[in-house]
Amino acid sequence: MIPVAALLTLVILAPEATPPAGALAPVEASRILDEALRGESIRILAELTDGVGPRLAGSPGADAAVRWAVDWFRARGITVRVDPVMVTHWVRGEERAEVVASKGRRSQPLAVTALGMSAPTPPGGMTAEVVEVRSLEELAALGAKVKGRIVLFQHDMKDASGYGKFAGLRLRGPAAAARQGAAAALVRSLSSATLRTPHTGATLIPEGVKAIPAAALSVEDAELLHRLLARGPVTVRLVLGGRLADPPLAPSANVVAEIRGSEKPEEVVVIGAHLDSWDLGTGAIDDGAGVAMVLDTMRIAASMPRPPRRTLRAVLFMNEENGAEGAVAYHETSLAAGTRHVAAIEADAGAGRPTGVEVTSGEGGLEAVRAMAAPLAALGASDVKAGGGGVDISPLAYAGVPLLSLAQDNSHYFDWHHSAADTFDKVDPRALAEAAAAFAWMAWALADSPVPLPPAPIPSTPPWWKRAAP
Amino acid sequence: MIPVAALLTLVILAPEATPPAGALAPVEASRILDEALRGESIRILAELTDGVGPRLAGSPGADAAVRWAVDWFRARGITVRVDPVMVTHWVRGEERAEVVASKGRRSQPLAVTALGMSAPTPPGGMTAEVVEVRSLEELAALGAKVKGRIVLFQHDMKDASGYGKFAGLRLRGPAAAARQGAAAALVRSLSSATLRTPHTGATLIPEGVKAIPAAALSVEDAELLHRLLARGPVTVRLVLGGRLADPPLAPSANVVAEIRGSEKPEEVVVIGAHLDSWDLGTGAIDDGAGVAMVLDTMRIAASMPRPPRRTLRAVLFMNEENGAEGAVAYHETSLAAGTRHVAAIEADAGAGRPTGVEVTSGEGGLEAVRAMAAPLAALGASDVKAGGGGVDISPLAYAGVPLLSLAQDNSHYFDWHHSAADTFDKVDPRALAEAAAAFAWMAWALADSPVPLPPAPIPSTPPWWKRAAP
Repeated sequence: MIPVAALLTLVILAPEATPPAGALAPVEASRILDEALRGESIRILAELTDGVGPRLAGSPGADAAVRWAVDWFRARGITVRVDPVMVTHWVRGEERAEVVASKGRRSQPLAVTALGMSAPTPPGGMTAEVVEVRSLEELAALGAKVKGRIVLFQHDMKDASGYGKFAGLRLRGPAAAARQGAAAALVRSLSSATLRTPHTGATLIPEGVKAIPAAALSVEDAELLHRLLARGPVTVRLVLGGRLADPPLAPSANVVAEIRGSEKPEEVVVIGAHLDSWDLGTGAIDDGAGVAMVLDTMRIAASMPRPPRRTLRAVLFMNEENGAEGAVAYHETSLAAGTRHVAAIEADAGAGRPTGVEVTSGEGGLEAVRAMAAPLAALGASDVKAGGGGVDISPLAYAGVPLLSLAQDNSHYFDWHHSAADTFDKVDPRALAEAAAAFAWMAWALADSPVPLPPAPIPSTPPWWKRAAP
Repeated sequence: MIPVAALLTLVILAPEATPPAGALAPVEASRILDEALRGESIRILAELTDGVGPRLAGSPGADAAVRWAVDWFRARGITVRVDPVMVTHWVRGEERAEVVASKGRRSQPLAVTALGMSAPTPPGGMTAEVVEVRSLEELAALGAKVKGRIVLFQHDMKDASGYGKFAGLRLRGPAAAARQGAAAALVRSLSSATLRTPHTGATLIPEGVKAIPAAALSVEDAELLHRLLARGPVTVRLVLGGRLADPPLAPSANVVAEIRGSEKPEEVVVIGAHLDSWDLGTGAIDDGAGVAMVLDTMRIAASMPRPPRRTLRAVLFMNEENGAEGAVAYHETSLAAGTRHVAAIEADAGAGRPTGVEVTSGEGGLEAVRAMAAPLAALGASDVKAGGGGVDISPLAYAGVPLLSLAQDNSHYFDWHHSAADTFDKVDPRALAEAAAAFAWMAWALADSPVPLPPAPIPSTPPWWKRAAP
């Protein structure tokens, strides 16, 4: 591994990359980057994915992850606490589906996996005709015609850029179909690669809507149904056992660790990732990588000759995937405590190499973050853009907290996202170490900068956790 | 679609590519290629994969495939018969596995699928410690140390070139492990891409060896076990329901269709593919594509103004995948009938674009095939090499029959091979049409050439279907 100090010397001598005089010591940047590039992050990730494994909120795996994280911090002498939070407790069950045989066509199995919040089918399954739609508008236009049918949400996501475009079909489609009397929903997997692999994910079931059975379908099977529908009616048999547990909420926790600031300990920089994962894989890229980056950042910060000026607070949020109760609970707890957050940065974009930093803050914030990020030029990660944030830190926006996120190469992220293929082997140790390095440096810079970032304007939309969905 | 005739004119005027004067009419080459490039092959493939679906020998799907193929030929007025053959009847059952929890490590599921001929585990499954080996030699060296253990066959196949190198682990590993008293075998999937996808396949269980439970493991899970074994003992729980049916043989059939030769009807050119598939996918690339190429060849040959000089015989072999009884039965039946085979060409290399022709024959055969293949230069497929053959036509080698195969782009073949991802969507219609065109022309050229290819030398090794394995 090349010590980054040599590269940094070039960067920090370049006039355009020089941080404000005396603001952040270059020697600290090189120390932090070098320490992260030693690659402890991949060892942390292996402990979490190989040792703990899948950790869907409410499951024994999630409980084990909380214990593991607490032990990890304690073993390194870092102050840690658990903040209890009640989380959605949804449990997966049996899941299978098939195209029912018809004249000239044999029955065929379909690769499915239940989506979060799916209701179970009746014992033994259900059988209904399939109606295909490509948008929520198309579904709405069908009105009562979908009554008793299985709605197939079709799309043509090809790469990472398609996720934002089509995720609404998975998030809001099942509830919308339920409202129109549909018997079940099948959503084509939101993925950029497929080997007959279904990708699960959250669905939003607003108050007053009764969830219906809802499953992700592999891309191959979505295309099969599309071809068959072009030739005539198609009936599918669906068996889904997944359901909300009884009771539907389970006790869990956010894990909160702190390195107290030396000059302004009451000013807090949050560095966040989510400890839960979907249950199909081991959550290596979503969000084991983020957890590894946050933990390695704390390890490195704790190893520095002095603490940062402000308090560095690691928050491992619980249940980002299927309810985001950890995010809301942290926000409400810190509101009640009168916590002064000066910035929050989230790591939930996989394990790809870092490409830059995203920030949402007040006027002048972009320039200030550019100055902070200058040492990341050594990693090709000093590109600073507007638009930082993430699900878990998003409630802090309503307190005007500047929100940041690390931008990373996501070209393969959706090949694995929310599927059984989200496993340790997908992570390149060097790319993860570089991401951890960029994250650690930004965390330190935010906590140690003499001047905090300008507060962000309060969002004009109502808080998402108080809005009815869809 | 560009009519290939224009391109052909250039090719057939080039001196180095001119076939023996008067031998094969260029106008027929252009007609055959153009007809195949119209793309009927993809429609045939859709009928087989979407309409019939999975067709493991002995299953209702395989029976349906036989009926479908017979109907297909009859509907086009092509003479067809079924040659009964008893085939291995192995049925898949429940299949799951997990790493058993141990100190500091939670239980994790493993993605497995039973291999052909696997015995079932006891009801409720079995639990044993894992021993990892990388070769049959390494296994042999362990002797009785594997008694009662689960043998993990590890390897590092990366691309298509690794299949030949490592397929022996799957074919012979389980029986070898059984002989040494192992409780079960797990074979790392032979694949060039993975999204936690297990790839099944045949295993050879020689007379006198009692099969043990044997499964393919996804690449991810093979790597997980490897990492865990580096830290200490690993115990796996395995539940496999797959087993030989009772009785272990089921009635099935080869489908044999003919276009009778006009000049030498007693001289037969066999064009072959296999009608069965593994059960996980729909056998689109293995070997639906080959079946589509053979059927399209027959359709085109039947549409020519005159029949070829010799008899063109399509053979859709049964159970290439899990016993190859169709191949042996065809050989024995035609031996008994005194059939004069002058050549056999097999299509069982997927749906990739054609790159050339492979041939195993006597002296001068390579040059003769080069002359025949000259019109394929228009498709970039006129590269002729030694080494033609295929499992289903291989018994004919013992009668000295020249054996050929189409060479095709196989760069993605092992991404999907023997897995649930072997589905229709993987096939590019244009590539398949080009492969069908090349195959159809070679079939016609072999059947219509004035001079047959020189007979191949008889193999010095004993027939594989009479050898004890491994």
